[in-house]
Amino acid sequence: RISWISNIIVVVSPENIEIMKSIIEKYDHRRVMIVKGGITRHRSIFNGLKVFAENEFSNHLLQKPEVVIIHDAVRPFVEEDILSKVVMAAKEHGAAGAIRPLVSTVIASAADGCLDHSLERARYRASEMPQAFLFDLIYEAYQQCTDYDLDYGTECLHLALKYCKTNAKLVEGTTDLWKVTYKRDLYAAESIIKDNLSQQLCVITDVKEAVAQVGFLLHESLKSQIKVEAISISLSKNDSHLQNIFSGQCYNFVCINDKKYAIQETQQLLDMLEKSSIPLLYPVVLILVHLDISENISFSIGMEELTRIKKFAREVKKQNILVYGLLIQYK
Amino acid sequence: RISWISNIIVVVSPENIEIMKSIIEKYDHRRVMIVKGGITRHRSIFNGLKVFAENEFSNHLLQKPEVVIIHDAVRPFVEEDILSKVVMAAKEHGAAGAIRPLVSTVIASAADGCLDHSLERARYRASEMPQAFLFDLIYEAYQQCTDYDLDYGTECLHLALKYCKTNAKLVEGTTDLWKVTYKRDLYAAESIIKDNLSQQLCVITDVKEAVAQVGFLLHESLKSQIKVEAISISLSKNDSHLQNIFSGQCYNFVCINDKKYAIQETQQLLDMLEKSSIPLLYPVVLILVHLDISENISFSIGMEELTRIKKFAREVKKQNILVYGLLIQYK
Repeated sequence: RISWISNIIVVVSPENIEIMKSIIEKYDHRRVMIVKGGITRHRSIFNGLKVFAENEFSNHLLQKPEVVIIHDAVRPFVEEDILSKVVMAAKEHGAAGAIRPLVSTVIASAADGCLDHSLERARYRASEMPQAFLFDLIYEAYQQCTDYDLDYGTECLHLALKYCKTNAKLVEGTTDLWKVTYKRDLYAAESIIKDNLSQQLCVITDVKEAVAQVGFLLHESLKSQIKVEAISISLSKNDSHLQNIFSGQCYNFVCINDKKYAIQETQQLLDMLEKSSIPLLYPVVLILVHLDISENISFSIGMEELTRIKKFAREVKKQNILVYGLLIQYK
Repeated sequence: RISWISNIIVVVSPENIEIMKSIIEKYDHRRVMIVKGGITRHRSIFNGLKVFAENEFSNHLLQKPEVVIIHDAVRPFVEEDILSKVVMAAKEHGAAGAIRPLVSTVIASAADGCLDHSLERARYRASEMPQAFLFDLIYEAYQQCTDYDLDYGTECLHLALKYCKTNAKLVEGTTDLWKVTYKRDLYAAESIIKDNLSQQLCVITDVKEAVAQVGFLLHESLKSQIKVEAISISLSKNDSHLQNIFSGQCYNFVCINDKKYAIQETQQLLDMLEKSSIPLLYPVVLILVHLDISENISFSIGMEELTRIKKFAREVKKQNILVYGLLIQYK
């Protein structure tokens, strides 16, 4: 996704190495190497860094980077912008990390379980990820770590300060950098993904006027709420406009036609979708609307068509494309 | 909900007083009084406390309590257990507050935007709500507050320490006490409510053997996942077992019958539901299953029945009861 990152080391606990391998294969991730984690956070990170400096983990050493980013998987919503900011700050200061304002006041407790003192909230920050370091600096810090550091420490910025006298630059991160910790955080994460996926809709109609008009009206009524593209095309042609949309981040399609059994056209659309990498990461929603404005409307023929779409939908679900059929009979 | 709390003061910003009044009326909340908030957190809390000590806000003073609990609305999932714990601790120590472990390391930033030092995570806690105080103690503390405290302070435990030399007892709170702060937290809160609502299911069948058997099988197949009650009753009787279920926290009902148009029995069930206070707070889900095991199965009669249920469902939705119809035709 981000071209200026040359290697990605994923540090995984031994029992999850096989799963991680299959994920990397399934999504065809390049530049990724798996390293076995240690029993604590710092030991795992140290293992990851060693790939660039010691022969322990691979037969060929990876080329040592100038700057290394350290991130954790519990913060899935990391954007290129913050990665770039911490890297630039690390180049200048030697170390840098994302921070967020504190949500609750932090207090120190005494040995008897009573309040010792409370911290002035405005002076303190939550330290988040990603963090970035000059490789030589953080590797030096880890080499000097005591066993106590490796077993009980949690903060890389602290190691840079303690062993290399480097005060990390603090960079304000986005809201979405929070740490997915509790069950409720999984729901929150799901909601963010769903929000992102439902930002954009593409309405595709064939070129006939009645149908194109419906597409236009749908566009008009939705455009105040989400980003809508409405295009009228003859689906038999390989449309370049449609290709552009596929190369974007659109996951929702409404396809309106007035032909019975427009399965052939739909299949073409699906082929184009599959060729794009869109359905690989998230499910694509495709709503097939069949406008029946003929004189002789038949309920049973309508049902027949919906049954066909149902069977078709079951097939393409395997490709992570969710097809829904909507039959509108209108006299 | 909690009988040992004698008065509840809701401190509300001036623009929300009318909404709050309508909520209190709608849900028939007793023991609740509204007080106008100030421009900062501490000024609002002080306003709330004055109700028990000054004539400023009401013509009749409320009786001064021994212990006062301070809570905030952004933590909606507060259980009786933690309230009771902070109150008992406040009686003994003068002040007490809920705490949670820190999720991220906390760091102090220097004036130049760089790391000054990081805190050892294990020694610190996030201070959450609820907190409880001997009334005289916290009121005394607020009376001594400077304008700076009232404008920039955020922590009641700090005021008790600073002005009354009282080290609050810290009480470990539950996970769900987190502060609903960002949009994602609303989704997380929704998921917790939904989780709670879907813990329990009641399957109601009439006493005929074939139908009761279906209820039994449904119970068997679901009981490993959720708490299921299955009862066979003649719905014309006012069943005491059913009354017990209604007085519990069950929000999901599956009602299985083999009679056409069992609207009368359904209506009785709905009347009982409405008389209980269950649908007031959260929607109740009622799934009406009609088993058609007759010789002459007719598709159109089945559709007719579903149409009736649809109309019926539209009516009872106003009472916050969501009715779904399921027709099973089986030869």
